[in-house]
Amino acid sequence: MKSFIHKNFLLQTDTARKLYHEHAKKHPIIDYHCHLNPAYIAKDHQFDNLGQIWLEGDHYKWRAMRTNGIHERFCTGKDASDWEKFEKWAETVPYTMRNPLYHWTHLELKTAFGITELLNPETAKKIYDECTEKLRRPEYSARGLMKKYNVEVVCTTDDPVDSLEHHIALKNEGFEIKVLPTWRPDKAMSVENPTEYRKYIEKLSDVSGINISNFNDLIAALRKRHDFFESAGCKLSDHGIEEFYAEVFTNTEITNIFNKVYGGKALTKEEIIKFKSAMLYEVAVMDYESGWAQQFHYGALRNNNTRLFNLLGPDTGFDSIGDYTVGKSMSRFLDSLDKEDKLAKTIIYNLNPRDNDLIATMIGNFQDGSVAGKMQFGSGWWFLDQKTGMEAQMNALSNLGLLSRFVGMLTDSRSFLSYPRHEYFRRILCNLIGNDVENGLLPASEIDFLGKMVEDISYYNAKKFFEF
Amino acid sequence: MKSFIHKNFLLQTDTARKLYHEHAKKHPIIDYHCHLNPAYIAKDHQFDNLGQIWLEGDHYKWRAMRTNGIHERFCTGKDASDWEKFEKWAETVPYTMRNPLYHWTHLELKTAFGITELLNPETAKKIYDECTEKLRRPEYSARGLMKKYNVEVVCTTDDPVDSLEHHIALKNEGFEIKVLPTWRPDKAMSVENPTEYRKYIEKLSDVSGINISNFNDLIAALRKRHDFFESAGCKLSDHGIEEFYAEVFTNTEITNIFNKVYGGKALTKEEIIKFKSAMLYEVAVMDYESGWAQQFHYGALRNNNTRLFNLLGPDTGFDSIGDYTVGKSMSRFLDSLDKEDKLAKTIIYNLNPRDNDLIATMIGNFQDGSVAGKMQFGSGWWFLDQKTGMEAQMNALSNLGLLSRFVGMLTDSRSFLSYPRHEYFRRILCNLIGNDVENGLLPASEIDFLGKMVEDISYYNAKKFFEF
Amino acid sequence: MKSFIHKNFLLQTDTARKLYHEHAKKHPIIDYHCHLNPAYIAKDHQFDNLGQIWLEGDHYKWRAMRTNGIHERFCTGKDASDWEKFEKWAETVPYTMRNPLYHWTHLELKTAFGITELLNPETAKKIYDECTEKLRRPEYSARGLMKKYNVEVVCTTDDPVDSLEHHIALKNEGFEIKVLPTWRPDKAMSVENPTEYRKYIEKLSDVSGINISNFNDLIAALRKRHDFFESAGCKLSDHGIEEFYAEVFTNTEITNIFNKVYGGKALTKEEIIKFKSAMLYEVAVMDYESGWAQQFHYGALRNNNTRLFNLLGPDTGFDSIGDYTVGKSMSRFLDSLDKEDKLAKTIIYNLNPRDNDLIATMIGNFQDGSVAGKMQFGSGWWFLDQKTGMEAQMNALSNLGLLSRFVGMLTDSRSFLSYPRHEYFRRILCNLIGNDVENGLLPASEIDFLGKMVEDISYYNAKKFFEF
Repeated sequence: MKSFIHKNFLLQTDTARKLYHEHAKKHPIIDYHCHLNPAYIAKDHQFDNLGQIWLEGDHYKWRAMRTNGIHERFCTGKDASDWEKFEKWAETVPYTMRNPLYHWTHLELKTAFGITELLNPETAKKIYDECTEKLRRPEYSARGLMKKYNVEVVCTTDDPVDSLEHHIALKNEGFEIKVLPTWRPDKAMSVENPTEYRKYIEKLSDVSGINISNFNDLIAALRKRHDFFESAGCKLSDHGIEEFYAEVFTNTEITNIFNKVYGGKALTKEEIIKFKSAMLYEVAVMDYESGWAQQFHYGALRNNNTRLFNLLGPDTGFDSIGDYTVGKSMSRFLDSLDKEDKLAKTIIYNLNPRDNDLIATMIGNFQDGSVAGKMQFGSGWWFLDQKTGMEAQMNALSNLGLLSRFVGMLTDSRSFLSYPRHEYFRRILCNLIGNDVENGLLPASEIDFLGKMVEDISYYNAKKFFEF
Repeated sequence: MKSFIHKNFLLQTDTARKLYHEHAKKHPIIDYHCHLNPAYIAKDHQFDNLGQIWLEGDHYKWRAMRTNGIHERFCTGKDASDWEKFEKWAETVPYTMRNPLYHWTHLELKTAFGITELLNPETAKKIYDECTEKLRRPEYSARGLMKKYNVEVVCTTDDPVDSLEHHIALKNEGFEIKVLPTWRPDKAMSVENPTEYRKYIEKLSDVSGINISNFNDLIAALRKRHDFFESAGCKLSDHGIEEFYAEVFTNTEITNIFNKVYGGKALTKEEIIKFKSAMLYEVAVMDYESGWAQQFHYGALRNNNTRLFNLLGPDTGFDSIGDYTVGKSMSRFLDSLDKEDKLAKTIIYNLNPRDNDLIATMIGNFQDGSVAGKMQFGSGWWFLDQKTGMEAQMNALSNLGLLSRFVGMLTDSRSFLSYPRHEYFRRILCNLIGNDVENGLLPASEIDFLGKMVEDISYYNAKKFFEF
Repeated sequence: MKSFIHKNFLLQTDTARKLYHEHAKKHPIIDYHCHLNPAYIAKDHQFDNLGQIWLEGDHYKWRAMRTNGIHERFCTGKDASDWEKFEKWAETVPYTMRNPLYHWTHLELKTAFGITELLNPETAKKIYDECTEKLRRPEYSARGLMKKYNVEVVCTTDDPVDSLEHHIALKNEGFEIKVLPTWRPDKAMSVENPTEYRKYIEKLSDVSGINISNFNDLIAALRKRHDFFESAGCKLSDHGIEEFYAEVFTNTEITNIFNKVYGGKALTKEEIIKFKSAMLYEVAVMDYESGWAQQFHYGALRNNNTRLFNLLGPDTGFDSIGDYTVGKSMSRFLDSLDKEDKLAKTIIYNLNPRDNDLIATMIGNFQDGSVAGKMQFGSGWWFLDQKTGMEAQMNALSNLGLLSRFVGMLTDSRSFLSYPRHEYFRRILCNLIGNDVENGLLPASEIDFLGKMVEDISYYNAKKFFEF
């Protein structure tokens, strides 16, 4: 019997198979946005067992387990063993059929460990033991896995106050895979909590060596760190925002708002939005001046469950898709930069797919012919990082922009086992195009151009766009 | 020639056919949300003719007829005969091709009456006469139809002031099909019209035997009725709301607002929202304390046509899909309950499919592992109760949650002929899964698990979830 | 090798092919909404070359070119030659694969010029020369192209102050194709800029011969022009609005607002919305009284790029899809007319496809049985005028209304080469229905009715609806 994940998984047509096997699969992975721990790479971390590498910090799996009636003890609990947690996960896996976890799980088992059996309570022990044994081999270390998956570049996600010691060490060491930092200054805008904000500013002051006593100092300190990130190989920024902020503000207002929050006083909602508008503009200008690409991930409704937030903290599986109105502010924000000719190459990721068409047309307003695909509609993010979500994003981009100029896939993952998502994406891309050829929507005669297009989207577009 | 509704209607693959014929179709119907008139069951109502059972109160058909240029006289008019109305409906039927009415019509003719001819002006008289003759037979009474369709449980929709006399009579009589009430306290929150509201509160005071002079009395009276509903077998509540209400309020504010509206004064918009926030919280707590499941149907824009509302009243086909912003308030509402550990099992139904992904992720924030599928994304509701709508709901749920834990279909109908919508749903479900297997998205080897999954979604999940 | 655009392009099933070739394709084109320049028809304009007819004013192509990294010089630049621009366009064409431009381009080459080669840098010169040579022949004049495409009626888009001289000349001349004006009074509502507004009002005063010194005069002047348009054969209006305006206002308020803006003072946001609410109501009443159909195109976010707006002005490719909340105001607006029995036949076009279901149900609230399909959901507009967009619109309309009563396609185009979009639409329509028959969702036995339905949607419905 053919294994579930087989050579032509997701490839429904001959054209799709040809495009994937002859064009897509041969290229290395450029994972230009992820949340890997750079220390794990620098120290070439070795994982203890399959439970640890798969379940620690994986809020996708925890959400599925909770939905399946599994007690929190086996998700985030401290007293359940890695095996016990894995057993509960294995019990849940069959119930995830039609969820991307079912595909990811078996893609990872197949591509990392060569396992073609399906994970379920019957196979759990055998799979756990076999993978755990392999994970203890040198070729299954953090670096080993990256090499196995033919990774060429990864960009981690880092705070401006980060020392980037691991990135620097890897660079100095000459590690063959580029491990670059990404500038994510979210905390420099998080003025909701004055106490936490002051602590953060003091830390920033510390690492930058700039005494921060007003807003201009703050910008100067960030700029210094921005330069430091650049010297460490950083090529792009990332911003996690609820909405786009583009309120009108004056310098005096921003100065006063900074002084107020730094002085420990809570800001009004209007002040917060004005401050974020100023900050977002300033950091975008920095990205432009450094020639970086900037990314915006917007629209998440975070920490919805207060009870479990108090127990477990953020990023534990209690975030969801919001329904923010964003058209006008996104337009004003991008326009405020473009007007001054300071709009960097930009990628926008939405979390609610109902905004797909809006984004796919919004980027068109600021394509200025300077660089092919200067403005990008980011690949299906987070909840949308699945077949339906990716197809919807690529279809919207195709209908309303140029798919051919798309910079393609990224994992956005904390795990060294997530690389097959690039394979997943490439198969889906080839399948979309293959179906179009099959249905006469694209000319079969142009198979060479289509092959090139698949290669561009899989690899070359990102390489050029980010100047790796 | 094969009849339009045939054995394998909607089942495109062998897997779909196997799943439907071997797994889905054998199970009884649990119709956990409908608007049947319980008196009709208690008295075992016999219908006069096909026009009466099909067209009285059926605003779906009226909307189609109006769109087709049919005069109101033949929709809601008092002076047109049942046959005349039916004739106009038959004239409209071919024009409904691609609308769910076309499928429903022929499914109902086939499954209830064994008629395989298509309804149109040529066949109208013959079909009318044949069905009318059958409707006068005992096996076509209200109860007869329920038995014919293998119904096991129905939950009607009832106001807290309802005597539930028919439910009680049916229980006492030992009628083999469970006919349970559902608690729908919408009127207890409808403070928009002080005069109507006062009348309602007085009625509630009356039936509860609790003298209501303030907000606490109101809650006490509702609680007493809630207990009464429970004693009559009620297992779930339902709430028809425009939006989710989750404003901050104090007890004093709510006390004053109640006094104001009860005193006959119109409330401000802010007061209305605060009051509804308080009420929604209180009724949700009651549901938790009784161990019921609670349902929320939100997002309808009702009574859009003032001219015809004044002539015909509500629920006559002048409602539509709204575009409310609901993410934050829905989150706050559910969180306010979860924080106190008072969040009942919950089903959320949206009317605008653009919220599908939001809902499918929102429920994940409150899955707590206590019960598999504690938080449910309700099946395609009202305008979405068709193939596209059901598939979109199941695809969103699959991608962002666990389809396997879904409690499945309900008719939401006023008609004893709507039961084939369960068959329709099951066929669509089997077809979705069959296509996935055919396309290699689900492993063919897991057909047994998939069979069980189909049975769960068709029957067992609801049975367990509602504890019928 | 079969050419890309071939006889059965887009027609996947035998039923689709039968429907298209036997029913759809034979009917003339009624292009009831476009932006053709009527002077070109009156003077029977002859185009210089393919670059001119294809690239002048075509912001769809400019957007694609900018996205492809082509300098503005080759889009809107004054100093690049038609050939140079065309060369850059040809370079871009392969990169538009999966974008509707790829289909439109080759449909136009095939149907207007008989060219079946694909456009790309290699074929550019040959195609340019061949088409340019043909464009200089008499049968490729403006009128020649209209005849070639079997056009029966076109409705242009005209301002109330327009002299309609070309429409009148064509009528007097007895030109065999009806070229009718459409009343588009957007500027009469554009009170954002008092200076521009005053200029416009003075022009209106001039052409109407009515001295406009207050709001009532304004309405009287518009009414006079409305009558003039009617005398010139106008059958429908069009309104380009961001959102629906339906605020409560008093006559005094509107009088004062008009005086204020006419006096040169900037209005507040509230005043603007009240004024637009009043105007929208008044012009809708005029349409009702004249028995016209009214069109509303809403939801565009325009002129997003200030830098290029200042250089190039409006309609140059810097508009996009907005995310306005429209349910309640759209309902109130339509209801305000219906209440007084003054609601004209209406077509609503949305730009954000997330509103498809809302619109498809909203129209149902005001179908009153007077005319079949009185309220229409407009065909995929602007960014949505592509296969996915058209299918989504038709599927929503089918599921939530009656597709059979749809008035169908329009080009909305400035170009004499856009007529094959009607063919594109008809193929897509036939394909949708063909797939449904193939999948057993529609009965194969009803092929005659389906053929009639296709003919109605392609031609007869519009002819009857607009009373051409």
